Amino acid sequence: MSVSAASVVVSARGAARGAVRDAGLLAGGSGGPAALRPLVGTVLDALAVGAGERCGPLPRGGPEVVAGRVRAAVGEVLPEYGVGSGAALGVLVRALAEGAADPADPLCAAHLHCPPLAVAAAADLAASALNPSLDSWDQAPAASELEALVCGELAGLVFGGRVPARGGGRPDALVTTGGTESNQLGVLMARERFGRGVRVVCGENAHHSVHRSAWLLGLGEPVTVAAPRGVLDPAAVEEALAGVGGRALVVATAGTTDAGVVDPLPEVAEVVARCGARLHVDAAYGGPLLFSEGLRGRLAGLERADSVSVDLHKLGWQPVAAGLFVVPDAAELGVLDHRADYLNADDDAAAGLPDLLGRSLRTTRRPDVLKVAVTLRALGRRGLAELVEHACAAAGVLAGLVREERGLELRGWPELSTVLFRPVGASDEVVAEVRRRLLEEGRAVLGRASLDGRLWWKVTVLHPRVERGELAELVKLVRDAAADVAAGAGVACGAEVGA
Amino acid sequence: MSVSAASVVVSARGAARGAVRDAGLLAGGSGGPAALRPLVGTVLDALAVGAGERCGPLPRGGPEVVAGRVRAAVGEVLPEYGVGSGAALGVLVRALAEGAADPADPLCAAHLHCPPLAVAAAADLAASALNPSLDSWDQAPAASELEALVCGELAGLVFGGRVPARGGGRPDALVTTGGTESNQLGVLMARERFGRGVRVVCGENAHHSVHRSAWLLGLGEPVTVAAPRGVLDPAAVEEALAGVGGRALVVATAGTTDAGVVDPLPEVAEVVARCGARLHVDAAYGGPLLFSEGLRGRLAGLERADSVSVDLHKLGWQPVAAGLFVVPDAAELGVLDHRADYLNADDDAAAGLPDLLGRSLRTTRRPDVLKVAVTLRALGRRGLAELVEHACAAAGVLAGLVREERGLELRGWPELSTVLFRPVGASDEVVAEVRRRLLEEGRAVLGRASLDGRLWWKVTVLHPRVERGELAELVKLVRDAAADVAAGAGVACGAEVGA
Repeated sequence: MSVSAASVVVSARGAARGAVRDAGLLAGGSGGPAALRPLVGTVLDALAVGAGERCGPLPRGGPEVVAGRVRAAVGEVLPEYGVGSGAALGVLVRALAEGAADPADPLCAAHLHCPPLAVAAAADLAASALNPSLDSWDQAPAASELEALVCGELAGLVFGGRVPARGGGRPDALVTTGGTESNQLGVLMARERFGRGVRVVCGENAHHSVHRSAWLLGLGEPVTVAAPRGVLDPAAVEEALAGVGGRALVVATAGTTDAGVVDPLPEVAEVVARCGARLHVDAAYGGPLLFSEGLRGRLAGLERADSVSVDLHKLGWQPVAAGLFVVPDAAELGVLDHRADYLNADDDAAAGLPDLLGRSLRTTRRPDVLKVAVTLRALGRRGLAELVEHACAAAGVLAGLVREERGLELRGWPELSTVLFRPVGASDEVVAEVRRRLLEEGRAVLGRASLDGRLWWKVTVLHPRVERGELAELVKLVRDAAADVAAGAGVACGAEVGA
Repeated sequence: MSVSAASVVVSARGAARGAVRDAGLLAGGSGGPAALRPLVGTVLDALAVGAGERCGPLPRGGPEVVAGRVRAAVGEVLPEYGVGSGAALGVLVRALAEGAADPADPLCAAHLHCPPLAVAAAADLAASALNPSLDSWDQAPAASELEALVCGELAGLVFGGRVPARGGGRPDALVTTGGTESNQLGVLMARERFGRGVRVVCGENAHHSVHRSAWLLGLGEPVTVAAPRGVLDPAAVEEALAGVGGRALVVATAGTTDAGVVDPLPEVAEVVARCGARLHVDAAYGGPLLFSEGLRGRLAGLERADSVSVDLHKLGWQPVAAGLFVVPDAAELGVLDHRADYLNADDDAAAGLPDLLGRSLRTTRRPDVLKVAVTLRALGRRGLAELVEHACAAAGVLAGLVREERGLELRGWPELSTVLFRPVGASDEVVAEVRRRLLEEGRAVLGRASLDGRLWWKVTVLHPRVERGELAELVKLVRDAAADVAAGAGVACGAEVGA
């Protein structure tokens, strides 16, 4: 136990109240860095130990076994007396690491769940220590300016090529908790523009949060357009719009969750414009292709949207959360204007104190922008582009490996970094069972997608340095597991499984 | 620049794509801790340097000057080539620290903006490094169980004393981004129970997020009940309920933002029960008094609520965010049930994979529960109680000091940790100007509240170790600044201000 941890215990148990300010209690102030240093050391040690104990992409044993180990490690959740900082960090961080599904392992590749960059995770520590809250200037003097700068720059990346910008304004972005909140904001802007009668029109390939947003905001169920080829059919969108009248929001997707494909944005934008509707593009997944000169062409048409979702905790390698809601004209964000005298009184605004409350639906708000700003500066546009390009290229490599396997069927060539495949001739039950068995054995985290009336394995390649050999290992692992499941035999899984 | 930072630069600028996996790129995996160690060292050094440069509770110069310094430090937001991890962290973390309003300084005491515990900030680093996402088990095997344990325990703290629990179920909680989201969930549950015609009834002392939630969810404007004595009048609530019929949600507050007072919860609960309405209590501020045997009596009646907001990033000293939405019966959370085949397919649920999607309105979700779990274990209930008690006692000390000053008027004795005061006989303009001047000079962060038709300074004591001498310094600083402003003279402010 470190010195500072011991001091907290002593303080908690009986130091005279306030008599001596315990060294090491707070993360901020001039003493904060010294207080944090030993504790952070404990965290890093525990992360290393936990990863070693896990020894794979996820813990072995399945939900009940993993939960049992966590319960055993935690013991009493809220003990009467504390055990001290070092001891608590050591035990719980180790348990979390031992029981993590770690996307830094190339065999953990199910979801849009990225391995974060070390530089971004380190930057995030400063956000935790200083704890600026972005609901008023006097809680975040520097953080609020940093957010404004980064949001403006990234919004320019999305809408900078649009000439002239709609309304002549400058593009801007809000920082969100992710694509779900960004999509919700896109629907909200349409509701405030068109009123409660607005209809949302989306493809059956749209993210579930589009439906959930409409429900949350008190709107009718979205009109869902069939997407038999995986992407929106502009003619079907036009037909749907004709059915609901002009007061509609079309939601298109640049990087679907299931297949990683991009709707035909220029054609959809054309239809939307013709019908006087609004267009929101969910580019939570695909948006970061904009960093790459070679890949940004795949997002052509994005700049015609009225609003766009982009997540930098997907192909941007940020720790969660780093969502963006991007609009071509900052004035449109006025929909969120809101007043609370203690945060943005009129006379304070008149005296030059920035009004931040309209920059989110949240009030208290962590500066997720810091890790993003540090990453942009550390890697530069080209550095980020290289990571995006690697992930997309690796998906191509994986698709090639799958195609070479006679027993496997590749659904199609990846557009972004998602690869769907399945065993030739197998039932959906086998596909589902293989995925669950690999999870239970702690060997791989595969995703699943129901498309074309069949269930597929989904690999979402987000590892920015994955190598061909690792992808080949993944293919072999899945192929062998499928053969075993199909044969009704258990896969050899070591003595510890289920223990 | 550290070795790992240099390796990122080299990689970004020209290493053969994927040929060598750069050491130090990712925070996770077996190499993550080693990659993080030098970067975290850089962050702690930069925090120390920045705090030293600030040399006070907030940066000097006011919004334009601070923004200028941030812009100068950031330079190009998205350079073509990166500068490397160490250099980016050093510059941006230092700028953020230099320009922070740091609640670890006792003179930064405006808002419900706490100085986080070092142990909580350190724990949060593990969340960033491992990046579990709580929308599915296979992204967060251990984190999801940890969340379930902590939520159950804390919900028990709120509703454990309730006999019998409504419906016989067990209490549960959801982790939220803060009181705003928790209040929104409270309103949402009422909407789903009573339908779109539900009316929200709240006091004029309620948090602004109650109104914003009703708007967001597509409901009518809340019926706002006058609270001339600062708290809800149960008779006025009953009258309002009679006016709107039984399909109503009453929102009461345990710790108002402006005055830190607690509505008469037992009487309000009685009225609500009589009228067949629902009761949501916003205890974002006051909730953590439950840790203290001596103080929890002030929240009597809380256990009769249908839902409760509690923020552990206020009197719980967590970095943002650590919100909780608490209900007496976990079954009520079924309102949020939601299906997305890739995250919670029926056959996966049947096979025992936990369904997490209904535990939030977000999809991707950071494990904010980790820092909370570590804090509970490190300090124990008594350790947390001691911090809560210190903050509340310190507010009493401050109130005493104010009362001793002939030139100052104390609005009332603090119920929680908020102290309101103003100069005797001064205009609202002077009160507002003093606050802004102290902000601009970087000398103190005071809050403001409009109550009883007048503007007050607000000090929200959240520092868990603030001493009497520091509170006396704050009183003297404000008193002297008020005298100077009233005299129309500038306060001496040093050569650097405005530079």
